[in-house]
Amino acid sequence: MTNVREASYAVFKHFGVDRLFGNPGSTELPMLKGMPFPYVMGLNEAVVMGMADGYARSSGKPALVNLHSSAGTGHSLGNLFTAWKNNAPIVVTAGQQARSILPFDPFLGAERPTEFPRPNVKFAIEPARAEDVPLALARAFAVALTPPMGPVFVSIPVDDWERECEMPALPDLSLRTHPDPKGIEKIAKMLEGARNPALVIGTAVANGGGWDAAIALAEKAGLSVWAAPYAARETFPEDHPQFAGFINAWRDQIRDALAPHDAILVAGAPVFTYHVEGSGPHWPEGALLMALTDDPQHLSNLPGGGGVLGDIRAGLEALAARLPERAFTGATHKLIDPPAEMKAAYVLKRIAALRPAEAVIVEEAPTARAPEHVTLPITREGGFYSCASGGLGYSLPGAVGVAMGQSDKVIAILGDGAAMYTIQGLFTAFQEQTNVSFVIMNNSAYAALTGFSGEFGMNHVPGCDLAGLDFAKLAEAQGLAARTVECVDALDDALAWSFAEQSPTLLDIRIA
Amino acid sequence: MTNVREASYAVFKHFGVDRLFGNPGSTELPMLKGMPFPYVMGLNEAVVMGMADGYARSSGKPALVNLHSSAGTGHSLGNLFTAWKNNAPIVVTAGQQARSILPFDPFLGAERPTEFPRPNVKFAIEPARAEDVPLALARAFAVALTPPMGPVFVSIPVDDWERECEMPALPDLSLRTHPDPKGIEKIAKMLEGARNPALVIGTAVANGGGWDAAIALAEKAGLSVWAAPYAARETFPEDHPQFAGFINAWRDQIRDALAPHDAILVAGAPVFTYHVEGSGPHWPEGALLMALTDDPQHLSNLPGGGGVLGDIRAGLEALAARLPERAFTGATHKLIDPPAEMKAAYVLKRIAALRPAEAVIVEEAPTARAPEHVTLPITREGGFYSCASGGLGYSLPGAVGVAMGQSDKVIAILGDGAAMYTIQGLFTAFQEQTNVSFVIMNNSAYAALTGFSGEFGMNHVPGCDLAGLDFAKLAEAQGLAARTVECVDALDDALAWSFAEQSPTLLDIRIA
Amino acid sequence: MTNVREASYAVFKHFGVDRLFGNPGSTELPMLKGMPFPYVMGLNEAVVMGMADGYARSSGKPALVNLHSSAGTGHSLGNLFTAWKNNAPIVVTAGQQARSILPFDPFLGAERPTEFPRPNVKFAIEPARAEDVPLALARAFAVALTPPMGPVFVSIPVDDWERECEMPALPDLSLRTHPDPKGIEKIAKMLEGARNPALVIGTAVANGGGWDAAIALAEKAGLSVWAAPYAARETFPEDHPQFAGFINAWRDQIRDALAPHDAILVAGAPVFTYHVEGSGPHWPEGALLMALTDDPQHLSNLPGGGGVLGDIRAGLEALAARLPERAFTGATHKLIDPPAEMKAAYVLKRIAALRPAEAVIVEEAPTARAPEHVTLPITREGGFYSCASGGLGYSLPGAVGVAMGQSDKVIAILGDGAAMYTIQGLFTAFQEQTNVSFVIMNNSAYAALTGFSGEFGMNHVPGCDLAGLDFAKLAEAQGLAARTVECVDALDDALAWSFAEQSPTLLDIRIA
Amino acid sequence: MTNVREASYAVFKHFGVDRLFGNPGSTELPMLKGMPFPYVMGLNEAVVMGMADGYARSSGKPALVNLHSSAGTGHSLGNLFTAWKNNAPIVVTAGQQARSILPFDPFLGAERPTEFPRPNVKFAIEPARAEDVPLALARAFAVALTPPMGPVFVSIPVDDWERECEMPALPDLSLRTHPDPKGIEKIAKMLEGARNPALVIGTAVANGGGWDAAIALAEKAGLSVWAAPYAARETFPEDHPQFAGFINAWRDQIRDALAPHDAILVAGAPVFTYHVEGSGPHWPEGALLMALTDDPQHLSNLPGGGGVLGDIRAGLEALAARLPERAFTGATHKLIDPPAEMKAAYVLKRIAALRPAEAVIVEEAPTARAPEHVTLPITREGGFYSCASGGLGYSLPGAVGVAMGQSDKVIAILGDGAAMYTIQGLFTAFQEQTNVSFVIMNNSAYAALTGFSGEFGMNHVPGCDLAGLDFAKLAEAQGLAARTVECVDALDDALAWSFAEQSPTLLDIRIA
Repeated sequence: MTNVREASYAVFKHFGVDRLFGNPGSTELPMLKGMPFPYVMGLNEAVVMGMADGYARSSGKPALVNLHSSAGTGHSLGNLFTAWKNNAPIVVTAGQQARSILPFDPFLGAERPTEFPRPNVKFAIEPARAEDVPLALARAFAVALTPPMGPVFVSIPVDDWERECEMPALPDLSLRTHPDPKGIEKIAKMLEGARNPALVIGTAVANGGGWDAAIALAEKAGLSVWAAPYAARETFPEDHPQFAGFINAWRDQIRDALAPHDAILVAGAPVFTYHVEGSGPHWPEGALLMALTDDPQHLSNLPGGGGVLGDIRAGLEALAARLPERAFTGATHKLIDPPAEMKAAYVLKRIAALRPAEAVIVEEAPTARAPEHVTLPITREGGFYSCASGGLGYSLPGAVGVAMGQSDKVIAILGDGAAMYTIQGLFTAFQEQTNVSFVIMNNSAYAALTGFSGEFGMNHVPGCDLAGLDFAKLAEAQGLAARTVECVDALDDALAWSFAEQSPTLLDIRIA
Repeated sequence: MTNVREASYAVFKHFGVDRLFGNPGSTELPMLKGMPFPYVMGLNEAVVMGMADGYARSSGKPALVNLHSSAGTGHSLGNLFTAWKNNAPIVVTAGQQARSILPFDPFLGAERPTEFPRPNVKFAIEPARAEDVPLALARAFAVALTPPMGPVFVSIPVDDWERECEMPALPDLSLRTHPDPKGIEKIAKMLEGARNPALVIGTAVANGGGWDAAIALAEKAGLSVWAAPYAARETFPEDHPQFAGFINAWRDQIRDALAPHDAILVAGAPVFTYHVEGSGPHWPEGALLMALTDDPQHLSNLPGGGGVLGDIRAGLEALAARLPERAFTGATHKLIDPPAEMKAAYVLKRIAALRPAEAVIVEEAPTARAPEHVTLPITREGGFYSCASGGLGYSLPGAVGVAMGQSDKVIAILGDGAAMYTIQGLFTAFQEQTNVSFVIMNNSAYAALTGFSGEFGMNHVPGCDLAGLDFAKLAEAQGLAARTVECVDALDDALAWSFAEQSPTLLDIRIA
Repeated sequence: MTNVREASYAVFKHFGVDRLFGNPGSTELPMLKGMPFPYVMGLNEAVVMGMADGYARSSGKPALVNLHSSAGTGHSLGNLFTAWKNNAPIVVTAGQQARSILPFDPFLGAERPTEFPRPNVKFAIEPARAEDVPLALARAFAVALTPPMGPVFVSIPVDDWERECEMPALPDLSLRTHPDPKGIEKIAKMLEGARNPALVIGTAVANGGGWDAAIALAEKAGLSVWAAPYAARETFPEDHPQFAGFINAWRDQIRDALAPHDAILVAGAPVFTYHVEGSGPHWPEGALLMALTDDPQHLSNLPGGGGVLGDIRAGLEALAARLPERAFTGATHKLIDPPAEMKAAYVLKRIAALRPAEAVIVEEAPTARAPEHVTLPITREGGFYSCASGGLGYSLPGAVGVAMGQSDKVIAILGDGAAMYTIQGLFTAFQEQTNVSFVIMNNSAYAALTGFSGEFGMNHVPGCDLAGLDFAKLAEAQGLAARTVECVDALDDALAWSFAEQSPTLLDIRIA
Repeated sequence: MTNVREASYAVFKHFGVDRLFGNPGSTELPMLKGMPFPYVMGLNEAVVMGMADGYARSSGKPALVNLHSSAGTGHSLGNLFTAWKNNAPIVVTAGQQARSILPFDPFLGAERPTEFPRPNVKFAIEPARAEDVPLALARAFAVALTPPMGPVFVSIPVDDWERECEMPALPDLSLRTHPDPKGIEKIAKMLEGARNPALVIGTAVANGGGWDAAIALAEKAGLSVWAAPYAARETFPEDHPQFAGFINAWRDQIRDALAPHDAILVAGAPVFTYHVEGSGPHWPEGALLMALTDDPQHLSNLPGGGGVLGDIRAGLEALAARLPERAFTGATHKLIDPPAEMKAAYVLKRIAALRPAEAVIVEEAPTARAPEHVTLPITREGGFYSCASGGLGYSLPGAVGVAMGQSDKVIAILGDGAAMYTIQGLFTAFQEQTNVSFVIMNNSAYAALTGFSGEFGMNHVPGCDLAGLDFAKLAEAQGLAARTVECVDALDDALAWSFAEQSPTLLDIRIA
C-alpha cells in the first residue's frame, strides 16, 4: 500500500512528467508536499495554462497543471480553450474542498466541477473515492495523448492526497493509428493523375511530427506546398523552392490561391478555416481535393471531396513511398524588402536578419502576421508557435513554456494588446530565467480591430485605444531587463542585445 | 420594423443599462456601431467581468458585458464564477461567428457556446434566429434580476446585428417576493422566547438592501449581531454597541462564538460557510436556529433548524414590526490598537484613521482580513465589497467598477498576490479616471498559503515567493501616480496623499 | 451512528414519503433491504415515473422514485421531462455501480450520471462520499419542493447503503413566498380600472392550491374566467356562470377569445403557450395584461405588460381582499349536446352523465380534448390531470398514480396511440388494485397527427395506422377485466359497469 | 437551389439510408412529406431506438431515426444509452418547435435540446440556420460512422424543412485506421514467446467485421479463444475446438479462467468488464496481457499491460500474417445435456436442436445467459446480438431491427421481465411482417434479481413478482400468432411451428 500522493507521482513519472505548472491555493497544498519535481508558478491561471501548452507542444511531452478550485480553474479557461484548439496534451488537476464538507457548500468548494471546463476538455472527472485518484490520473494522461490530443481535467478533493491506496499498474500504449492503405491509395491516384498537384499543410502536421515526411513527399512528387489558413505551427521550410505561400481565410482568396492546381491534398487541417462569410465553391471548381488528418473533426465537416483518417506522418510517408518521382514546376513564395521605417514589416525583417540560427518564433500579433509571412521565414521544425483559437493572451506565457520545452532562443513577437492580456507572465519568465526575447510590436491600439472594422462599415471602434502603456516599465517591474525602441536607428542594436542575452528581455518597439 | 441592434439598445435602456463593459473582438464589432452609451474597456476579460460585478453591486443596476467568443469568454470565467457567488446581476453577451460559416468550424467560432459558461450562469442562450436576439436579451435581464440574482449569458452571431426585427414589448416586473407570514411568525416566536438572541448577517442582507432593516430589528429586539463567515459585503455598523463581531469559518469557532445565544437568526447566509473540515454540531447544542434568506440554496442544505424563504429586507421589517422592544444585554465587538510597525494591522488602523468619512472599502488581501476586523470598522451601507467565491483576481477590477457605480472614494486593499492576477485593470482605472486608492499590502509572498500550510503539516509550499515585484512601476507603466512605502514614518503622508487625490493612485506598502 | 440506509429512511419520513415507486435492478437492491414502506413496481421506468408524477400531484406530497442506473434512468426521461413541465416534486434516486470498480467502466456503471437527466431536473448529484447520501437526499427534497417545484436526481453507488454515517438533522422549511404587496396593488389597480376584466387560469393555480381563491376573487371582482392554453390541471368550475371557456394555443384565436376584455390577469401560466407560429400582438390591442405566478419563467419571457412573482393562492387572496365587489356581466361557456354516434363527443358526454360525482379525470387523448371542453365539465378541485409537456405516455401510468394519491374513482381517458406508449402500466394498476376506469378512445390511428397534417399541406402521414390493436386483450393479459364497445347501444352499460367497479377495468371504445 | 428536405434526403442517400425508424409527432411532419423510403413506426420511442440499433448492427449501415421533441426523445434515452454502449451508428433527428415561437416557450418546444441526449451521443447539434440542416446531418453521419461508432443527435425546427438551401457536396471518407505496425509487433512478440497463449474476444471484434480474421489468427497461432465478459455479439464459433468458453464478470473468476495462459491478447473489449466488486490482480499473476481495440476507452482504463489502438480486423490479420504456425494444445469448451424439464437449459437445448441452420439469436434473458453458453452454441458471423449496456428493453425491438437488417430467421430469447419493457414492439414486428420467433422464458419474476439478492444478504426483494402476465394474449392483441407452452411435451412442436413460420410468432414458455 502507498498513499494517493505517492501513487499519483508514480503516474506522473510513468507518463514522462518532469515539472508541475500551477498557481497554488489552499485546497491544493497536500498535492505539493514532497513533490519530486519543480513547480513552475504563474501569477494567474491564464499564465499557467499558456505556459503548460507551450511546454507540451515544444517538448512533445504531456504537461501537468495544478489549479485552484472554481475561480482558479475559471481564470484558465480562455487558455484552456486555446489548448483545446492547439491539441496540446495537458492534464489539468484542480483542487476541490474536502469531501466531508461538500454537503454544506463550503468556501472554495466547486459545484459541478467536471462541468466547468467543458466543452473544451476531452475528459473530466472527480473520482468517486480518494483511492481512485491515481487511476483517474492515469486515464487522464491516456486520453490526453490519444490523437487528436487535447486537455483533460481531474478534480481532486483536498483530503484525498493522504489516503491509502494501491500502487496502480500502468499500461504501455500505442495510440497513433495509421491510415487505411486503401485510403492512401485513393490519395495517391489523385496526385498521380494530376497536372499540377498541391499540398496544403495545417497545424496537425507539425503536431504529429510530419515536418520531414512532408518535405520528402513534396520533393518526390513535385508538389506545390501551401500553408493552411491560420496554421498555428510551422508548416514547411518557407525558404524551400516548393513553398508556394500562405492561404488566407477568405473563401474567394482560397480559391484564387489554389486556382493553378487540379488536385489538392490538405494535410492536418480543416477544409478550410474561414474568418468571414463567403460564397461559392470551397476550392477551385474542377479541382479534386482530399484530406489526410488524424482529427475526425476535419473530416466530419468536409464539404465534398475525400478524406482519410489516420496518423499524418505515417500517411505522408506511405504516399512518398507509393508515388513516382516528378519534377516540381510550380511557383515559389517571394519575400519582400520593406523600407526602413518603424512599421511591422521592417522590424520583422530585422528580426529575421539578426535572429540566432535556430531561434524559435512564438507569435501573437494579429497585424504583424501578414508582413511576417513575407519577411520572417520559418525554416526549422519546431520553429513556430501561435494559437489556433484566435484568442489573445496565449503567446506571452506560451513563449515561456516553449522556452522550457526546448533549448533554443525563443523570440516572442507580441502585439501590445495581446501582451497585456497576460502581462504577469513576465514574472515567471524572470523567475525561471527562460531564454526569451519578448518583442512588443507596440502600435498603441487594438489595431487588428480598427483595421477590420471596415468589413462592417464602421469608422470608429470604441475601446481600442491603448495609448500610454509603458512595456519596458512593466517588464522591469517584474525583474526583466528591457528597452524601448522608438526609431529605426536604435532597432538593430536593441534586437542584437536582446537576442544575445540568455535571460529574458523585453523590447517595446513603437511602430506606427 | 427596426434592426436587432436598435431593438437590443431598447432592451438595454428598459433595464437601466448606461454603459457597456467589454473587450472588443472582430465578431462583436457590429454590436458597437453607434452605441448610445459609453464603452468601458478592460485589457482582458477577467478585468472586464470584475469591473462589471463591482459596478452592478455598487450601483444596484444590472451590468452589461460584451466579450469575444470562446477564448475571450473563457478568460472571464474565473470572475464569472465570482459574480455567480456574489449574486451580481450581469448580462454577458459574447460574439459568435456568422451563422453561415458555423458548419465549417470557422476561426473564432464557438462550439457549444451556451455550455461554456455553465454551471455558473442562471441562463444561457444562443437564439435560434437573429431576430430573436432582443427577446433573448430581455429574458436575460429578467432572469439576472430575479432573486437570487446572478449572471446570465447570451451568445450572438456577428451577422445578427444588422438583421431586421420587430421592436419588442418589454414588461414591468415585480420579482422580489415576501416571506410567508407564517414563517415570519415562527422566527418571531423563537426570538421572543429566547434569553439571549442573536442575529447573524450574511452577504445577501446588503445585496437585498437590508442594512437599515437589520439595524432597526436588532435595536428593537435587543439582538447581538454577528457577521457571517466570509461575508462579502458590509453586514452591520461595526461601531454599533450591538455588533458582536465576526464568525470564523471553522465549525468549533462558530459554536464558540455563538455559545452565549439560545436563539439564532441567520439572515442572508448559509448555515454556515466552512473553510476546513470539522465535526460536531453546526451551532451550540441546545440553541434554536432559523434562517431567513432569499436564496433557496441557503435552505436546501440547512442542517436542521428552520428556514424561511423570501425577501430579507421585507422579512426583517416584518420581524421588527412584530417583536416587542427588548433591551440589549450582550457583549460588544472590540477594536485593537496595534503597535506602529510595518504590519497589516497597523497599516489598516492608519487607513481607518485617515480615510474620507464616506470611503468605500474593496478588499482582497487574505492575510489582512483578520486584522481588518479589529482595526478598520465598516460603518456605512455600501461600505464594503469583497468576493464571495474565495477566488483571487476580483477586487482590483472590482474596485474600479465599484467606483463607477457610486460617488465616494474607493480604497482597494489588495494583497500583492491578489493584485497581480488582474494587474492590467489599473489601465482602465486610469483611462476612466476612477476615484480609487489602490493599497497593496505587499508581503512578497502568497502569505495566506504559507500561513495555512500548517494545517497540512507542511514546512514549505512551492510557488509562493513573489519577491521582486515593483507595484509602483506597474502602476506608473499604466498611467497611475504611485508611491512605495517602506517604513512607518512615510505611511501617513502616503495615505493622506492617495486619499486626497481624485484620480487613481497606488501605494505599494511593504509589510513584514 | 447509523447507516446510510437508515439515515435515508429518516430523510424520507421527514419529508412525508410513504411509498417508493421503482423498477428494481441489481445496483439498487441494498436500498430496499428492510424498507419500511410499500414498493410500487412499474414494468418499465416510463411507467414508474408517470405513476410517481400522478401520485405527487394528486397527494400534494413529494414522490420518491428509485431507478436502475443509466439504461433504467434513460427509459424514464420522457416522463421525467413531463414531470419537469408538470412541476411535480419528485426525488429520483438511481443506482450506480460500486465506487471501487467505477475506474474500470463496469457493467451497469453510469458515466456522468448527473448529466444524464439534465436539463430536466432542478438539481442532480452523486455524493462525494457514501456517508453524505442522506444529506444529498435531504437537499433533494428541499429543492424539489421549492416553488416552482420539480424533479431532482440523486445517483447512489450500490456499496453506499451499508456504510456508517451520522443521522442528519433535518430542517423545517417555509418555501412558499408571497407576492410583493406593491405588485398586487398594480394588478388591483388594473382590474379596478377595467370595464370588462378577465382572469386566465393556468396549471400553476391548481398546483399551488389556488382553486378556492380563484373562485372567491372571480366572484367578488366580477371577472370572466378563461382556461389558459394547454392547462394540465383543472382551472375553474366549468359549470360556473363566470367560466368563459378555453383558450386555444393559436395567437389569433387567443386575441379573438380575449377581445371583449380590456384588462387581463393571467394567473399561473405563460403568456401564452403556442402550438404553431403566429403573428401580431399577443393579446388584444389596447387591453392591459398582467401575470401573477410563482414561476419566474412565466415572467422572463413576458412580451410586455406586467408581472408579479409569488405564491399564486396568496396573491389571489390578497386581490380578493383588496378589490371591491363588482357584478359579473360577461358571457358563459356553453356545453353541446352531440348526437348518439360512436364519436368522441358523444362518448365523453355519456362519461359526464354516468361518472361518479367526485370522479377525477386523467386525460391523454389529443383529438378528444376539444370535444371534452364542451361535453365533460370539470367541476371539482383535484378533478383533472393531463400532462403539460405534450408528450404521450404519461397519463396511463399517471392515472394509476393519481388513484394512489387520493380516494375517488379515476377515469383515464386515453387515445389508442397514447395508451400504447406505456400499456404495461396496466399491470401495476392491477397489482395495486387501483380504482381506475381506463377508457380507450380507439380510432385506430394517430388521429391528432393526420388531422394536423393539413397545417403543412400534407395528404398523407406515414406511420399513423394503428389498426389491429385489441385493448381488451392487452388489459386481460395483465389481469384487468375489460370490454370492447363497438356501438352506441352498448356504451352506457359498459361505462356503468366500469364506473361501478373498484378494481381497475378497461373499455376499448371503437370510435370513428 | 433546393430545399432543406430534398437536400437532407440527398444526405441520407449518400450515407446509404434506406428506411426511417420513427414515431411521428406534429413538429416532425414536414420531414415526412414525400419521403422516398419506408417509414418504420414504433409505438414508443424505446421501441424505435431498439429497432434502429438492431438494424444498424445487423445491416452494417447507419440507421436513421426521427423522434418527437423533448418527451419523445426522452422516451428513447434508455435505448439510446444501449446504442451508445453497443457502438451502433445511429443518426437521431428530433423535431423542435418553429424557430419564431421558441422565445415564448411554446408547446412541444425543447429547451436545451442538444443537452438532453448527452452524455450518450458522440455529437449533438441544433443548426444555427435552417439552411444548415443538411450539413449538420452530413456531419452527423460522419461522426456516427467514425470508430468507435455510436449515436449522434440533430434537433431540427419544424419550419426548417421547406426553406431554400444549396445542395451540399458530400465527401467520400476513409474512417477506419490501422494499428501502428510497431504496436502489432509488440503483440506478436508476446504471443510468440508464450507457452500457452489466449485470445479474449469482445463485442468490438464482431462490430468491426473481425470474425474470420479471429478464426484465422487463432488457428494459425494455436490460441485458446475466450469470450469476454458480457460480450454483446457473437465472438467465435462456439463449436470450434479452440473455443475455450465464456469469462464471467467476477475478478476472481476471470483469473481462474485465464490461469492456464501466460500471454493474453484481449481484442475489442475492456480489460475487464466487472459486475461486482473484487480484489487482487486483474489477470493471472505472471501472465502478460495486451489489448487490441478500436476504442480508446478500452485503453485509457487499462490496468497495466499493453494496448494498441486501431482497426481490430486489420490488426488480427496483421498478426496472423506475422506469426508462425503453432499447434493448439488447449482445452475445449463443453456443452451439457440438461434433463427434460421446464427449465431454461432444456428449452435452450431444444432451440439449438430445432433452429434453422442460419438462425440469428437475439437475447435478453439474464437468467438464461449462463445455460445458453452450454446449450446453444453460436456458430455463425452475425449470429448473436444482445445489449452491451445491461439495460433491459432492448432486445425485443432489437430483434425486429435485426430481422430487417438481414434475411435469416431471428430467434428472440427474452425474459418475461425484459419483454415487458417494450412489449409494444410486437406491433411493429407484425406490421412489418418480420421473420422473428419471440421466445419468452417466462419464470413469472425478475428472477435475475431475486437470484442476485444473496450478494447483499437479502432474503426478499420487493417488486419482483411478475405473476399473471399472459404473453400469448399480449401478442395476439398486437396481431401475432402465439402459443403458451406449459410442459415439456409441447415444447418441440411449438418451437418447430414458430421456427417454420415466416411471420412473427410468440411462444410463452412457462419455466420454473
